Amino acid sequence: MSTFRLALVGFGNIGSGLVKHIIEKKDLLAQRAGVPIELTWIADKEFEKPRGVTPPTSAKLTTNWREAVTAANVDAVVELVGVGADGKPTLAADIARAALSAGKHFITANKGLIAAHGGELHELAAKNGVLLLFEASVGAGIPIISSLQTGLAPDRITAIHGIVNGTCNYILTQLDSDSSLTMQKAIADAQALGYAEPDPRFDVEGNDTAYKLVILASLAFGQELSVDDVSLDGITKLGPEEGAYAKANGLAVKLLASAAQLADGSASLVVGPAFIPATHVLAGVRDVFNAVLVEADPIGQTMYFGRGAGQGSTGSGLLADAIFAAKLQKAGSPDPQPLRIPRGMRKPADPNAVEHRFYIRVRTEGDSAKADQAAALIGGRKIGPGGATQAFLVERISLSALDKLLGKLSAAGFPDGAICKVRFALGTT
Amino acid sequence: MSTFRLALVGFGNIGSGLVKHIIEKKDLLAQRAGVPIELTWIADKEFEKPRGVTPPTSAKLTTNWREAVTAANVDAVVELVGVGADGKPTLAADIARAALSAGKHFITANKGLIAAHGGELHELAAKNGVLLLFEASVGAGIPIISSLQTGLAPDRITAIHGIVNGTCNYILTQLDSDSSLTMQKAIADAQALGYAEPDPRFDVEGNDTAYKLVILASLAFGQELSVDDVSLDGITKLGPEEGAYAKANGLAVKLLASAAQLADGSASLVVGPAFIPATHVLAGVRDVFNAVLVEADPIGQTMYFGRGAGQGSTGSGLLADAIFAAKLQKAGSPDPQPLRIPRGMRKPADPNAVEHRFYIRVRTEGDSAKADQAAALIGGRKIGPGGATQAFLVERISLSALDKLLGKLSAAGFPDGAICKVRFALGTT
Repeated sequence: MSTFRLALVGFGNIGSGLVKHIIEKKDLLAQRAGVPIELTWIADKEFEKPRGVTPPTSAKLTTNWREAVTAANVDAVVELVGVGADGKPTLAADIARAALSAGKHFITANKGLIAAHGGELHELAAKNGVLLLFEASVGAGIPIISSLQTGLAPDRITAIHGIVNGTCNYILTQLDSDSSLTMQKAIADAQALGYAEPDPRFDVEGNDTAYKLVILASLAFGQELSVDDVSLDGITKLGPEEGAYAKANGLAVKLLASAAQLADGSASLVVGPAFIPATHVLAGVRDVFNAVLVEADPIGQTMYFGRGAGQGSTGSGLLADAIFAAKLQKAGSPDPQPLRIPRGMRKPADPNAVEHRFYIRVRTEGDSAKADQAAALIGGRKIGPGGATQAFLVERISLSALDKLLGKLSAAGFPDGAICKVRFALGTT
Repeated sequence: MSTFRLALVGFGNIGSGLVKHIIEKKDLLAQRAGVPIELTWIADKEFEKPRGVTPPTSAKLTTNWREAVTAANVDAVVELVGVGADGKPTLAADIARAALSAGKHFITANKGLIAAHGGELHELAAKNGVLLLFEASVGAGIPIISSLQTGLAPDRITAIHGIVNGTCNYILTQLDSDSSLTMQKAIADAQALGYAEPDPRFDVEGNDTAYKLVILASLAFGQELSVDDVSLDGITKLGPEEGAYAKANGLAVKLLASAAQLADGSASLVVGPAFIPATHVLAGVRDVFNAVLVEADPIGQTMYFGRGAGQGSTGSGLLADAIFAAKLQKAGSPDPQPLRIPRGMRKPADPNAVEHRFYIRVRTEGDSAKADQAAALIGGRKIGPGGATQAFLVERISLSALDKLLGKLSAAGFPDGAICKVRFALGTT
C-alpha cells in the first residue's frame, strides 16, 4: 500500500474542516501514519454551496455515496452525514453497512449511529476484517476512546463520569458567573453565540449527553446498552435557587453523565444535573469544554479534557482514527482493539438497586399548604427558608422510587416544570 | 506466539505490585492482549525480604539480571531498578541495552533513564525491530505517552504544561488550604505521610519534574532534549506572601513544567513555581494528582489527569505497554509509534528569546534602603505594602536576563534563599 485512501461522505462544516486539515497537514500526516493519507472521493447531496475549501485534485466528487463507499481506490470511509430529520441515523447506518461489507474501515463522528448500532457494526467490521472507529463521536478529539482501548487496556473500568455536552456546560458556566441570569436568557445567549442550536432541546434536555454515555459505557463495560437504559434529565428546570445552594455549600452544578458497573456486572446509567464539590477537577471544566473521568482498577482515577466540538478537535479525532487504521492496515493486523460493543450482550441495572442522594426543589408560590404537601410526599429534610420555592434533601432514593415520587408530585398538581432534582455526585456529602 | 512472556528486573515496591496485578488480572489481561501475559523471569539482588506477594510458578528467580534479560523465553523486559546512589541510571541503561540488543521489547518506568538515554535507546530499539515503551515514566499510568502517540497523532504539538510531581502538588495544596502552614512544616508533614522522601530535594527542587518535562518535550517536538536545557526552580522558597498574593488575585500556585515549540522550531523548557488562574482546569489538580495539558493543532487544548505514582497506576502504565507490545508482536509490526526521540537532533531555545512575566519577591527585613536597592536592580513595579518582604512585577523578562538579575541580587547581598520568583502562566494577566 503506497497511500491510505479515504472517501468522505458528508461535505458540511466538519467535512470541509477535515478536507482543510488533510491538505494543510499532508506531510505531518504522512510522517505520522507511515504512508500518505489521500482523499480519493467526496460524496454529498450537492457541491454548489461554497465550503471555504477547494477539494484536492485527488478527490472525485459524487452525489452517489454508494459509488464513493464501494470504490476500489478506497481504504476507509469517513461518514459525516449526521442523523435524519426524524433524529434517526438511518442513512449513516446504510453507509456504514455498505462500507464495512465492502471491506472498508469505517470512521465516524456520529454518536447517534454508534449508540444505536454499535454492536451490529462492530460485528460486521470483525466479520469483514476491518475496523469500526469513532473517536470523534464522544468529546470530539479528546482521545477518550483510544485511551479506553490503549492506556486503560489493563484496567477493569468501574465507573465513568462525563461532562460531554459543551452547550450545557457553557450555559451552566454562565449561570454560575452571573446569578441574575435566567435559564431562558442563558439559552438565548448561547444560541446567539452559535453554542446552542435554534432548537436547543437535544442538548439542554440531556439527550446528546445520553448518547455519548451509552457509547462510553457500552465500550467500557462490554455491553450493548441503549439510550432507553439511561435515567435522563436535562438542565432546563435549574433555577437561581440551585446556584445559590451550590455556592453556599462549596458545590458546582454540572450536567453529569455517570455510568457505574455494579457488583452483579450490570450497568447503571444516569444523566442529569448534579452537585459536585467545587474543588473537584471536573468543577474546573468550564465553558464549552468537555471532560471524562474514568475510575478503573488498578489505575484509579484518570480524567481526559478538551473541546467537545468544532472543526479542529473533531478533525483531529477523525484523523487519529485514520492514522490508526493506516498503521494497522500496513501491519496487516485486522483487529487490534481490546474493547468492542458486543452485540446482544446487555445487562442494564435494576433501577431499584441504584440509590443516590438527591436534592428536590418544588415551586410552592409561598403557599405553606403546598409546601407541607410536598414535604409529606417527598419525606426528605427541608432545606432553606422556603418561600416561593421549597427544597428537600433525600438521603437515599432509588431511581425507580424517584420516578414514582415525581409521578405523585405531578398527580398532586405540581407541574413537571416546577420540580427540579439534582443528584449529589463525586463524593459530595 | 501462544503467550507474551515478561522478564521483570527489580522486584521492589512497584515490581511486587506489578506481579500482583499480573496474577490477579490474568484473565482480563489475556482477553485485552489477545494472548496470555506470563511472567517467566524475575531478577533482583536478593529474594530474602518479604514482598507481600508470591511470584507465580511460571517465573524463574535469579540474582543475575543478564540471565533473565537474554533468556530465550522472554518477549519483553520490564525494568524497575531506578537510579544508582549517584542519581545516574547506569544499571538501568545496561539492562536496556542488553534487552534491546537481544531483541526484547523494553518497558520501563524510569524517567532518569529515558530523559538521559531516550534517543540512544529508541535508535537501538528500531535497529533490533523491537519497541521502547515508557508510559509509566511520566504521570505513572495516566496515558499521556500513548495519547501523544495515538490520539494526538494527527496534531502538531505546540506546548505542554504539566503538574507532574505529586509530592510538590501535595505540599502546595496543603499550603493553599492552611495559610499558617510553613513550607518546612508542609514538607515534614508530607514526609510523615510517605508522600516525600527522607531527602526531599529531588522532588521539591524540581529535578523530578524536569526529567518528566524532558521526556514529554523530546517526544512531542521530535528532539533529544536534556535536563540541562531546562530553566529549573523548585518550590522551597515559596512563602506565605505568595499564597496571599495568589488568593487576592484569583490565582493558584503550582509547580508547573512548561515546554513550548517556538516559531524557529526550537524548544523552550521551564520548570518552576507559577501563578495560574484559580478557575483554570489545572488549578483543580490537587493533592498527589498529576496532570498534563497539551496544546496542539488542530485539536486545541486537551488535558490528562491521574495519579502520578503508586503501585496501581504505575502497574497499569507498565501493563498497558506490555499489552501494546503483545498485540503488535502478534501482528508482526515492528514500529507502529509515530513519535520517537531522534538521537542527536536537538534545538534548545535561545534563553534570550523566551520572555515571561515574573513576580519576584525579596526579603528586606523591613530595611527600606534594601527595598530601594532591590527596586533599582529589579526595575519592576512594586506590589504590596512592603515591610519584611517586598515583591515586584516584571512584565517581560527573558530567562537569561532573569538569571543575570538574580546574580546581581545575590552580589548585592540578598541571599538566594531570600529571593522567590514565580512565573505567570496559562493566560494570567
